[in-house]
Amino acid sequence: MNEKIAIIGAGLVGSLQAIYLAKRGYDVEVYERRPDLRKAELLAGKSINLALSDRGWKALDGVGIGDEIREMAIPMNGRMMHDKDGNLTYQAYGKEGQAIYSVSRGGLNQRLMNIAEPYENIDYFFDLKCKDVNLKSNEITFQHTQTKEKTTKKFDRIFGTDGAFSAVRTRLQKTNRFNYSQFYLEHGYKELTIPANEDGSHKIDKNCLHIWPRGEFMLIALANLDGSFTCTLFFPFEGKVSFESIKTDSDVIDFFSEYFPDVMDLMPNLTEDYFENPTSSLVTVRCAPWHYSDKVVLMGDASHAIVPFYGQGMNSGFEDCTVFNQLMEKHGNNWDEIFKEFSRDRIKDGNAIADLALRNFIEMRDLTADPMFLLQKKIERKISDKHPDKWTPLYSQVTFSHEPYSEALANGERQDSIMKQVMDRHDIFDVWDSDEIENEILRLL
Amino acid sequence: MNEKIAIIGAGLVGSLQAIYLAKRGYDVEVYERRPDLRKAELLAGKSINLALSDRGWKALDGVGIGDEIREMAIPMNGRMMHDKDGNLTYQAYGKEGQAIYSVSRGGLNQRLMNIAEPYENIDYFFDLKCKDVNLKSNEITFQHTQTKEKTTKKFDRIFGTDGAFSAVRTRLQKTNRFNYSQFYLEHGYKELTIPANEDGSHKIDKNCLHIWPRGEFMLIALANLDGSFTCTLFFPFEGKVSFESIKTDSDVIDFFSEYFPDVMDLMPNLTEDYFENPTSSLVTVRCAPWHYSDKVVLMGDASHAIVPFYGQGMNSGFEDCTVFNQLMEKHGNNWDEIFKEFSRDRIKDGNAIADLALRNFIEMRDLTADPMFLLQKKIERKISDKHPDKWTPLYSQVTFSHEPYSEALANGERQDSIMKQVMDRHDIFDVWDSDEIENEILRLL
Repeated sequence: MNEKIAIIGAGLVGSLQAIYLAKRGYDVEVYERRPDLRKAELLAGKSINLALSDRGWKALDGVGIGDEIREMAIPMNGRMMHDKDGNLTYQAYGKEGQAIYSVSRGGLNQRLMNIAEPYENIDYFFDLKCKDVNLKSNEITFQHTQTKEKTTKKFDRIFGTDGAFSAVRTRLQKTNRFNYSQFYLEHGYKELTIPANEDGSHKIDKNCLHIWPRGEFMLIALANLDGSFTCTLFFPFEGKVSFESIKTDSDVIDFFSEYFPDVMDLMPNLTEDYFENPTSSLVTVRCAPWHYSDKVVLMGDASHAIVPFYGQGMNSGFEDCTVFNQLMEKHGNNWDEIFKEFSRDRIKDGNAIADLALRNFIEMRDLTADPMFLLQKKIERKISDKHPDKWTPLYSQVTFSHEPYSEALANGERQDSIMKQVMDRHDIFDVWDSDEIENEILRLL
Repeated sequence: MNEKIAIIGAGLVGSLQAIYLAKRGYDVEVYERRPDLRKAELLAGKSINLALSDRGWKALDGVGIGDEIREMAIPMNGRMMHDKDGNLTYQAYGKEGQAIYSVSRGGLNQRLMNIAEPYENIDYFFDLKCKDVNLKSNEITFQHTQTKEKTTKKFDRIFGTDGAFSAVRTRLQKTNRFNYSQFYLEHGYKELTIPANEDGSHKIDKNCLHIWPRGEFMLIALANLDGSFTCTLFFPFEGKVSFESIKTDSDVIDFFSEYFPDVMDLMPNLTEDYFENPTSSLVTVRCAPWHYSDKVVLMGDASHAIVPFYGQGMNSGFEDCTVFNQLMEKHGNNWDEIFKEFSRDRIKDGNAIADLALRNFIEMRDLTADPMFLLQKKIERKISDKHPDKWTPLYSQVTFSHEPYSEALANGERQDSIMKQVMDRHDIFDVWDSDEIENEILRLL
């Protein structure tokens, strides 16, 4: 068949999609603007780790590489909330045995490239920036980032997996009737580190996602294999307590002493890290359609960049690969149908997970410190345990199922309106565990 | 003072803003991608006319050129609705003497250029496309559209008045935390013509905006000075009755015979026009902020392109000039403050008129044929006539006042909820003119 496919962007989704396409016999060329990640040093403050969950695993298992990735993943079975006095509250994410998995973004990306590159029909090209896409001829003009030399190449299909600031999407944005939005939060983030103990062990429980919810802002920590934790401070850019207001070492120390006293001792390089690491912004990108005729298609962050608060950015991108593969199964070589159906059916799920991720920011930074919210989750867990066929908590639908995100969102809204009625009872703290409450919920369902 | 200002885009807003700035003594250079409109022939099917109303007039009068423009404007005192049987219903837009004014977009633009160009400190440059804006040095790289020659020039301030597909905004879109959306309607439009009678008179009443509301689509007509009407068909791109479904001359004739029988006779060139004139799309653009430090600012469609259904596209752009001028009055040469305040205070009004324009599409194409809607408007008119200090209809707030759009929108929503309660009475058609109804509305206010 010898169709020549370009994948623009050698990130997580680009590399996984390359494997999916190579397994079907296509000639795949992967182009990356940056140098080869496996040779470059990781930028300080960009050590990001991610939470792999069921949708991601399914996509990895779909090409038989899940087990290899499991070796580099640390299971997190629940959230550990830290209050201002250092008190801990634990909340399991799902049922016994269910977990989300902390993985290093860079490490996972390297591993995927190492798995993809040996394929005879996959070639990687680095330091080549996509400068222009000719939508008539399907030619891409690349520019070498060092030599500035330009080259133009023609492809049968082009996959844009080049992230939130996608060059491929920027080209599609200029086509007629292309809907597009980019929306930034008023909050940014900064990465900080809890280093390992001298013996390489973790300073706090590695099998939890740690959260310090503080209303308008929060700190989180995910474990790394080397015993360290990558922490992320989500914080307003401007305002009375904000990135803008913290200017000196003593500002940092005062702020952490007041809000995160139990973390202070764990971060010997706090002030250095704070001022050396960049402050980054958080964008939500939506667009429609996700394709241009049978020539170009967008996947992952390029078509649906979301905020990180549901841990679904990578998982939703990987699920794109699963869904796309099912459509190749269904439509064979009919790219027109594949692209059209992918765009038509998947956009609503991209929008749903974008909405869910925005909402979960409120839940994480604020509600996880609220006794009413914690009680509600406890009631939902009870109903779900006793009637698993009738009630799956929204978090579990998103994280531990393969139900389309748009359906999860709709179910979640229905559940929320039921729980609102139940939680409105003035005596809910006394009767929450009663048969009466259980029956009321079942009746409302 | 000798500040050098670039205005990118010699359209309506660019030319008016040039005059405002020149009157304050700045050196203004206006750059236009297209050839000089005054020498080029108007493209067929792009004879667009617009409805000038109070906000637009105020901006023109602000530099003393309103009277000159009034000569080329035809007052339209109300809507004339045409039903499928050719029956007419007339609805005044405002009070006695209030009107909106039909003007030719091209003609108005030429006139503004002719007024601006004689200023010693205004220079026009044509066929120069803005290729890039260097936000650090405030240099613009232009490319000549014929010779392809590139030139780079440095400015103190840059005004982006280059329309819905603004090159200046496209550059700002790449800056951090720039919110942006472009959203297309499922409807497009096509221009058609009702030519003048042989003696140069108009075939239908020139002092009305004619509407043929048909639910999912509509036709409108605005008079030109030469006796012709420019008609616009707003129509779905796809679907059972749509641009897509009309393929042959007889399809056009069948469609018009069924839905617009009274127009058929007035359009001798219907089928030719239909197939020769382009089908255009309708975009809403929003962004924030509207400026980049004290260097670049966006105005008009470049920052708030809206759909044409409230007749406020040009008027809102012209009002930008009025608001901007007030800020120059207030802050003198402090561009930082001017740009910041313009962006901070005016964006909500840009968003409000975008929302109002989208909603008015429903009203025009659908509700103007609905007896309940017409009765509601009649009641509102009565209350407004008897209690002008208490009730100004939303349409009048938008069209015949200078109240910020965002406040008009909020007032309109309050009025709507009151009218909803009143119209819900089962006997409203009998009692609408009673004191009881009047008192109820006053009570609810």
